[in-house]
Amino acid sequence: MQILAAFDVDAVFLTVSQLSVRSGLALATTHRLVAEMEQFGLLERQPDKTYRLGVRLWEIACRTPGALGLREIAKPYLQEVQARVRQHTQLGILEGHEVLFLERLSTRDAVVNVTLVGGRLPLHASSSGLVLLAYADAAFQDEVLASDLFRYTDQTVQAPEDLRGLLQQIRRDGYACGRGYIHAEARGIAVPIRGVNEVVVAAVSVVVPNDDAPVTGFVRLLQAAAQAISKDLHAAYAPPNDPAAPPGGRYRTLVSSSLDSMEYLPSAPRPRVRR
Amino acid sequence: MQILAAFDVDAVFLTVSQLSVRSGLALATTHRLVAEMEQFGLLERQPDKTYRLGVRLWEIACRTPGALGLREIAKPYLQEVQARVRQHTQLGILEGHEVLFLERLSTRDAVVNVTLVGGRLPLHASSSGLVLLAYADAAFQDEVLASDLFRYTDQTVQAPEDLRGLLQQIRRDGYACGRGYIHAEARGIAVPIRGVNEVVVAAVSVVVPNDDAPVTGFVRLLQAAAQAISKDLHAAYAPPNDPAAPPGGRYRTLVSSSLDSMEYLPSAPRPRVRR
Repeated sequence: MQILAAFDVDAVFLTVSQLSVRSGLALATTHRLVAEMEQFGLLERQPDKTYRLGVRLWEIACRTPGALGLREIAKPYLQEVQARVRQHTQLGILEGHEVLFLERLSTRDAVVNVTLVGGRLPLHASSSGLVLLAYADAAFQDEVLASDLFRYTDQTVQAPEDLRGLLQQIRRDGYACGRGYIHAEARGIAVPIRGVNEVVVAAVSVVVPNDDAPVTGFVRLLQAAAQAISKDLHAAYAPPNDPAAPPGGRYRTLVSSSLDSMEYLPSAPRPRVRR
Repeated sequence: MQILAAFDVDAVFLTVSQLSVRSGLALATTHRLVAEMEQFGLLERQPDKTYRLGVRLWEIACRTPGALGLREIAKPYLQEVQARVRQHTQLGILEGHEVLFLERLSTRDAVVNVTLVGGRLPLHASSSGLVLLAYADAAFQDEVLASDLFRYTDQTVQAPEDLRGLLQQIRRDGYACGRGYIHAEARGIAVPIRGVNEVVVAAVSVVVPNDDAPVTGFVRLLQAAAQAISKDLHAAYAPPNDPAAPPGGRYRTLVSSSLDSMEYLPSAPRPRVRR
């Protein structure tokens, strides 16, 4: 885990020495672990002797219903929003004290935006994070508000009493709008996605220019997407014997494909994989 | 690794006993390892006492340039193809003796298709696999052709001499077209994507109905996408001091966002993440 966690978005190729320094492990230990991890495909050795995370790790991680499964269900609706807004459209969940982004669709000319797929942002500064915080329980809110809150710009809301007011407003309006909280030129707009038991499980958002375009059009698009994703989430987690359950059986919580494909998958022949 | 690999697309929630059986590890060992892995976030315990792969595993795997990085670069071009074809559009790479799919975009009404994100198919049966095999070296081709080749339908090409002819045709034409090789109703069409040094590193494909629509229109769309992806791949891997290198610095091999975002990212403030 220490070696895996040593890689970062701006450090995807690392030598054994760099891995040793970044992981805090002795060089000899690092050498041994790296060799073992390479055998399992968790790491891949490059021609220049650096290592990168292995495709096998990514392949296993594709079995994560809470990440890839949710992204698969949300994907067609994110694409619809994106086709209309032509800026950034993203999907985020609560992970620890941050929002973790599962997807981001962008265009080449879209506004400046720090969101990365697999990247995190503090809850108080991003519109997605504020939505997730607004619907979290009071003890968790207290904990986050009492922590060290990073200031990106002079617009970032930092004072706990101001944030409490903001969270109340988000619950009342059903959306968050952050103007220049992370970058002066960008505005984030986010709405909650409800899972089974009506609990908020994710946020869908757009990042658009920080101009005078009214927020209502974006909110309507996002709320339609959130409702559709929520409906599909309920269906994916419906018991297999539920008469209203869609096709796909045990694949449904991870896979979202065409209706014909979902009907076919449970009985599709699966040749044994050589490894 | 044995516990991680015990999860599958149709087995995403498993009890400790199931994990023990599927991993081949003793029950006591499984209990101990599961508890450790849960602490690191590699596994998540569900209210019904089953376990699923953890979002933290997916998050780390998002630092994989060979999977997420390539998908990020290809994503806008896959979306363009998908917007035109309105069936399935997919991206696959060679992994072991199979093609591993990094992305699949579908529509609700698209034709039946077994491709899964993070899923594999045999090389000889899928159009993407055939493209990857056609441009692989001769020793690898011999090995694959000498192996046990799974027969999905009576159209699946199995005889080594027939497959050799097919591979030759693919290299000559620059694309593969598999009619009913995996399912009678579906046709796969794939073209190669070249990386640095002009080596074929991936295939971009569509899965469309197995009807009389001419293949040329699909091939033209796919080839335009492949060329654009190839160009962006070259740019992403250009040395940082190359005057033609696009913005984004050390982020380029993993992240593909708007130009403004790529310019901003290397200097963007990054608050420390609490874990």
